[in-house]
Amino acid sequence: MLDKIVIFGVGLIGGSFALALKKAGAVRIVVGMDRSAASLARARELGIIDAAGADMAAALDGADLVLLAAPVAQTAAILSALAPHLQAGTVVTDAGSTKADVVAAARRALGGKIAQFVPGHPIAGRESNGPEAAVDDLYAGKKVVLAPLAENSAADVGRVAAAWSACGAVIRHLSPQEHDKVFASVSHLPHLLAYALVDDIANKPHADLLFQYAASGFRDFTRIAGSSPEMWRDISLANQSALLTELDAYLAQLTTLRARLAAGDGAALESMYANAQRARHQWITAIETAEAPLVRDKAE
Amino acid sequence: MLDKIVIFGVGLIGGSFALALKKAGAVRIVVGMDRSAASLARARELGIIDAAGADMAAALDGADLVLLAAPVAQTAAILSALAPHLQAGTVVTDAGSTKADVVAAARRALGGKIAQFVPGHPIAGRESNGPEAAVDDLYAGKKVVLAPLAENSAADVGRVAAAWSACGAVIRHLSPQEHDKVFASVSHLPHLLAYALVDDIANKPHADLLFQYAASGFRDFTRIAGSSPEMWRDISLANQSALLTELDAYLAQLTTLRARLAAGDGAALESMYANAQRARHQWITAIETAEAPLVRDKAE
Repeated sequence: MLDKIVIFGVGLIGGSFALALKKAGAVRIVVGMDRSAASLARARELGIIDAAGADMAAALDGADLVLLAAPVAQTAAILSALAPHLQAGTVVTDAGSTKADVVAAARRALGGKIAQFVPGHPIAGRESNGPEAAVDDLYAGKKVVLAPLAENSAADVGRVAAAWSACGAVIRHLSPQEHDKVFASVSHLPHLLAYALVDDIANKPHADLLFQYAASGFRDFTRIAGSSPEMWRDISLANQSALLTELDAYLAQLTTLRARLAAGDGAALESMYANAQRARHQWITAIETAEAPLVRDKAE
Repeated sequence: MLDKIVIFGVGLIGGSFALALKKAGAVRIVVGMDRSAASLARARELGIIDAAGADMAAALDGADLVLLAAPVAQTAAILSALAPHLQAGTVVTDAGSTKADVVAAARRALGGKIAQFVPGHPIAGRESNGPEAAVDDLYAGKKVVLAPLAENSAADVGRVAAAWSACGAVIRHLSPQEHDKVFASVSHLPHLLAYALVDDIANKPHADLLFQYAASGFRDFTRIAGSSPEMWRDISLANQSALLTELDAYLAQLTTLRARLAAGDGAALESMYANAQRARHQWITAIETAEAPLVRDKAE
């Protein structure tokens, strides 16, 4: 049981964390901090937070756990602002989509208090944002990656893991570097590819004609191009190095595919398509098997 | 009212066409032709067809309309087989995803009877296949592109259009060349990109680790990579020229994106992402506006 937590950013990610902990009876009081006074007022009305922090010192006083869930571009500024008021008994974690840059920013901002920062990344989201979008089951059955530092104590890592577990999440550990490589591959690159395709089509002179004939396959393929441009600009820059590596591998792959297509090599094309179809089917099957017990729990 | 139609391929596309026409009371008798005797038997059990064609001559005798809905690789062979038995009063159409190659095959196979062939492409589909997958509302509110030939009579084009309209579809006209360029852009290229990404990841030594962290964005982006490799091999080759043009434009676009990322040019990246997000939002809004009356009709 946590006595007091502080949420920086009371929207989808932070708000859903607070609601899930409250539902689980795992926290006594939730204090919210947000650039937007309107968001804080709405979060209070919705029962996400119990109080808006008057100032940094008061908000952090006696806190067991702090979650940074504001846009990642604000992470360094928030850490710098909270550092002087961070008490010895408080653990800080975050929800950013990249980890190596967050760790570097945390080292600069927290200095000697770096052991109190346990980097994290919940793998969950929705297209909507803000306090209204927060729900108490956003993390049920979802993965949360923790990327602990050498300086972290087992007890502090355990406190963060226990909070996410109380939200129904499954805890995984990766190093910050492993984390960034994995997500460059399966999340960040697909976002860039979807944005690039829609931008490419939108810039063609006959874009209106093309969009008239786009159907459900196009809708699904480009759904992630509906995401926030600012957020994905920040993620692209924060994970620049790993993303360039993945993008170069993909460009090489497309160049191979182009050569097969230009040569009319149907067997080689079919082999690539079939390998992809098989791998995706195995992945979907593995996911459904892993999620089946959770679905059964919900039905009971 | 059509007296008799013949469906080559009694699966999702052909079967749904037959069921929709029957539901609308727009056809008296549906004859099915299929390589698979089991599919024909099942289509009969499900009420999709009234009879399986005994042979080509008997099947075509007195037919008003023939729909080719078998895998596109079979199109030329089917057209060659039916040509000698094609009576003057019969109109033939197809459901293939590419049109220029189908038109070329039809000219070779039908010769002097080419005026009786009206190329078509219903923009509808599902991931499942076979007679079991056929439903009577697959085409409701969906577009059907007709790509008439100079030789077609207005009456014959009208007969095909009326049949699809009876299925609830909206009719559009494009030339075969326009059709193939449009679908290379909004359908064929996205399929290639999704296959290429999943194949690229599946071939990495740490593929298992990567797939563990793939989430809902990846699932949607790669859904079309679950499609039939044989079908997409055939479409890739059939639309090779237009597809190479689109793939080259996309490679140039990715090269621009790579340069912006390597330069750390956040403003230029955000501009591309924002343009894509805006264009996709306008497209989704336009679709929803166009589909709204249909949804309302259904609710009434």
